[in-house]
Amino acid sequence: MRTRLSIVAVVLVAACAKTETPEQRTARMQAEGDSARTAVTARSAALAGFISANNADSSAAIYAEDAVFMPPNMATVTGRAGIREAFAGMHQGMGAGQMHFTTQNVSASGDIAVERGRWHWQPAEGNRMPADSGKYLVHWHRQGGTWMIVEDIFNADTPAVPAPVSRR
Amino acid sequence: MRTRLSIVAVVLVAACAKTETPEQRTARMQAEGDSARTAVTARSAALAGFISANNADSSAAIYAEDAVFMPPNMATVTGRAGIREAFAGMHQGMGAGQMHFTTQNVSASGDIAVERGRWHWQPAEGNRMPADSGKYLVHWHRQGGTWMIVEDIFNADTPAVPAPVSRR
Repeated sequence: MRTRLSIVAVVLVAACAKTETPEQRTARMQAEGDSARTAVTARSAALAGFISANNADSSAAIYAEDAVFMPPNMATVTGRAGIREAFAGMHQGMGAGQMHFTTQNVSASGDIAVERGRWHWQPAEGNRMPADSGKYLVHWHRQGGTWMIVEDIFNADTPAVPAPVSRR
Repeated sequence: MRTRLSIVAVVLVAACAKTETPEQRTARMQAEGDSARTAVTARSAALAGFISANNADSSAAIYAEDAVFMPPNMATVTGRAGIREAFAGMHQGMGAGQMHFTTQNVSASGDIAVERGRWHWQPAEGNRMPADSGKYLVHWHRQGGTWMIVEDIFNADTPAVPAPVSRR
């Protein structure tokens, strides 16, 4: 009888594996955050490389099928196919150069991660476009084990031109 | 003995209350998402009202103490005090008007929520600044039961001026 009771206890405790103390929850969230941070930072660096290489296919492949891309001074682009075209168009407009991303923070919970960072675009030798830099916020979602971009927005630090109509 | 075994089982099953089936997990995440969506959408609408009323104190109070505010065409502002000043400065620059936010999506997991939306600024009667609109992504964090903005970025749809240096 003692044996049977022990077996029941072991089975039930095993089924309890997911029950967490607050300390375990904090530790798990820290571990999840660390894991997401590492994965997202690597994916982000890969994207900067694809953009620099004008590889719109590989750039778009980092985005979820229904991702929402929100570049400054143009309309929102929805879906991977449109994002692919947006990358190709941006390269055509800006010319050759190196894109650098610096991840500043990644917050994660479950399948959601939010990456905040800075971007810097350095024109290639001979490209007379000015260098530019700014900030971004990217919402990543873990889909089938892979972190994909679902929402991406950025802007530039460089001052805007004065508004076309003055206040007075 | 049967009684003692049942007691052990009941105690252990009770301790297992947090163990979820995949269906329960989906249902919980849906409920968490709905709850976050309702709270975040209301907070966001309140912020638009405070901005319209040029109430920089109440606007800043929606932001976490160490929040990061990333407006277009200017440097990142960190911390609630700086964000308060940024709101006051923006109102001074743009003049009176109504700010409207339209929440388009809220994704939530645990204490993290990501809100995507559109903003529209309508100048007041007599204010000759042009109307403007664009998109935003806001990272909310539940702190002590209240959803606070920890990261906020936005940009305009309106086209940028041509770059000062041409490529050719």
